[in-house]
Amino acid sequence: MKRLTFWVVTMLVCITTFAQQALWGSAQVVSPEIHEDHTVTFRLRAPKAVKVQVVGDFSSTGVAEMVENKEGIWEYTTPKPLAPELYSYNFMVDGLKINDPANVYVIRDIASVTNIFIVEGERADYYKVNNVPHGTVSKIWYESPSLGINRRMTVYTPAGYESSGKRYPVFYLLHGMGGDENAWSVLGRATQIMDNLIAEGKAEPMILVMTNGNAIQEAAPGEASMGLTIPTLQLPKTMEGSFETHFPEVVKFVDKHYRTKANKKNRAIAGLSMGGFHSLHISKQYPDLFNYVGLFSAAIFPFKGVTSPIYEDMEGKLKVQFSKKPALYWIAIGKTDFLYKSNEEYRKMLDEKGYKYEYFENEDGHIWKNWRIYLTEFAPKLFK
Amino acid sequence: MKRLTFWVVTMLVCITTFAQQALWGSAQVVSPEIHEDHTVTFRLRAPKAVKVQVVGDFSSTGVAEMVENKEGIWEYTTPKPLAPELYSYNFMVDGLKINDPANVYVIRDIASVTNIFIVEGERADYYKVNNVPHGTVSKIWYESPSLGINRRMTVYTPAGYESSGKRYPVFYLLHGMGGDENAWSVLGRATQIMDNLIAEGKAEPMILVMTNGNAIQEAAPGEASMGLTIPTLQLPKTMEGSFETHFPEVVKFVDKHYRTKANKKNRAIAGLSMGGFHSLHISKQYPDLFNYVGLFSAAIFPFKGVTSPIYEDMEGKLKVQFSKKPALYWIAIGKTDFLYKSNEEYRKMLDEKGYKYEYFENEDGHIWKNWRIYLTEFAPKLFK
Repeated sequence: MKRLTFWVVTMLVCITTFAQQALWGSAQVVSPEIHEDHTVTFRLRAPKAVKVQVVGDFSSTGVAEMVENKEGIWEYTTPKPLAPELYSYNFMVDGLKINDPANVYVIRDIASVTNIFIVEGERADYYKVNNVPHGTVSKIWYESPSLGINRRMTVYTPAGYESSGKRYPVFYLLHGMGGDENAWSVLGRATQIMDNLIAEGKAEPMILVMTNGNAIQEAAPGEASMGLTIPTLQLPKTMEGSFETHFPEVVKFVDKHYRTKANKKNRAIAGLSMGGFHSLHISKQYPDLFNYVGLFSAAIFPFKGVTSPIYEDMEGKLKVQFSKKPALYWIAIGKTDFLYKSNEEYRKMLDEKGYKYEYFENEDGHIWKNWRIYLTEFAPKLFK
Repeated sequence: MKRLTFWVVTMLVCITTFAQQALWGSAQVVSPEIHEDHTVTFRLRAPKAVKVQVVGDFSSTGVAEMVENKEGIWEYTTPKPLAPELYSYNFMVDGLKINDPANVYVIRDIASVTNIFIVEGERADYYKVNNVPHGTVSKIWYESPSLGINRRMTVYTPAGYESSGKRYPVFYLLHGMGGDENAWSVLGRATQIMDNLIAEGKAEPMILVMTNGNAIQEAAPGEASMGLTIPTLQLPKTMEGSFETHFPEVVKFVDKHYRTKANKKNRAIAGLSMGGFHSLHISKQYPDLFNYVGLFSAAIFPFKGVTSPIYEDMEGKLKVQFSKKPALYWIAIGKTDFLYKSNEEYRKMLDEKGYKYEYFENEDGHIWKNWRIYLTEFAPKLFK
């Protein structure tokens, strides 16, 4: 049995050859370190660097100078405790943007990969994986006859779905420009938020469907037959009507393959930015599909020069939609959002027509922090 | 509508503030660039760096010096075409290991995050997402009474599962030390391999179940209630019998929640390294569960000093297992694997007893390249 002690040692040596920096004590720094008082220390071992900064959303300036100690470890501690939140950051080493080698948790936002950490407490506890019943998260492909391709969506079914035999309401949740069917679960913590809201009894158990809003894409970059190509904003075919036109195919697929309550009363649609735009135009185009509509920092009007039957007669379609009295039409935006003004105009138009909606306004602008907040506000209002 | 042209511009500016480096033309380099002849060029803009290397599995030495051009871009082109394969790499900038900022595709292996790329052709085409029907990949939680926690597994159901109404055979595929329920799909490209093998008619449509073999873990690091803590090897409770003991709970859950052919004839189990060890000991402990067994670079014998009923009377249990004539007992290992010798001893033991098995030997050692090869060899042999 001696060979097995040998085996462990050899295995560790093998693993550490590649993973050494991140695994082993003496060479390794802890970063980020979240202290008990919620100040946070970032560290990077870079003895040959001349200038090291940490950049991210943990401060209003977005950048902080790090200071080198005798061991060549650069360090920065926030002067004040950070509010509970999910934060993202990178290091800048002599002008080169890098990820924190001590932190394996990274998210991709369009073509940027950043590290994340969570400061616990308050609303941020909804973003954590807690010891509660967990729903199932599936990547499932559907055929779109109108788009002519097979496409992927992310579907969350609530804890207990597999054994309950029950039917559930469905909430369609759409991403913004440059996003994909992974965005809400990775950047928006949507599956954690739903697990936690449902476990607390604040939201009804529901199915959450996160589609890919880029009509020319099969699936997220790297997960489609295009291969490992560089993600782009892919403006073409995202806001020219074809995604909205095809949307009933999504609803039909979901109603066919999941135990849904397949009626308007039990359907919601919401999205951020471009996804808010999609939600607005899909819900007015198909006024008998969705009883709950959420516009999170939404774009409102189509691009100049874009023509599609979807965007024609906006006024007339809204009139039909609101005459059918949706259970909830919810508009949310941050005070510094660059879309604030067009949302203000849109609300004014709704007010003039006497169309009922709820409005939620908060600080900050066009950022994931707000979209996570909006999801935790919106989901508890559904299907009650 | 003028505000919408403005909106696009503002949006792009907003996005580029954070994602600038990776998105926009002039500042950005292409890396890696896979040329038509399959040589590969790596590039990094780092004008202030003194020494830049690329490290990875694309060469036998694992490291290559990069050369700086006038624009401060460091570059290295492989002298020869690379064989078709999925490769991983990092840059070393003045001793600091970083990811390639031009490549958003990263994988986590234990506590290391590396970039990947695929050189197409031959077997590597099985590792790509191709334009074929795709199975559904689900992260689903199950309760383990014996381990006392809720635990997550990854389940692949083949294309057509949702609508066929048919029952399917099940292949349980286990990871190695330091891995988790994500390892086979992320590092092993298991879901792509199954999609492609099934589409070509080389493998039967089957359900693939990838469990978490660390008995104390709920789920992969970062996806459990432990939070975003640093992944470790977590040696405790991985090879002391409790994972093997609890395994029938996994089979029971899968048979209850999926349309399985719930019998020995239609069950396979295989794993790499520690997962091969688990497969060996689970299949002999429960000789009526699995008709197909695969040991990929497997550890064979339990650690010195470990006692568990699972590991007692190995000879007697193997005798029972082989007396029931499994349809396939498949052993694969690379010539330079540090477990080669113990596998040789094990085969000798099986030979002496006259127990039938198939043996597959190839180049290289204890690496994912081999485990992907073994999966493409093993899966087509199942359920025929």
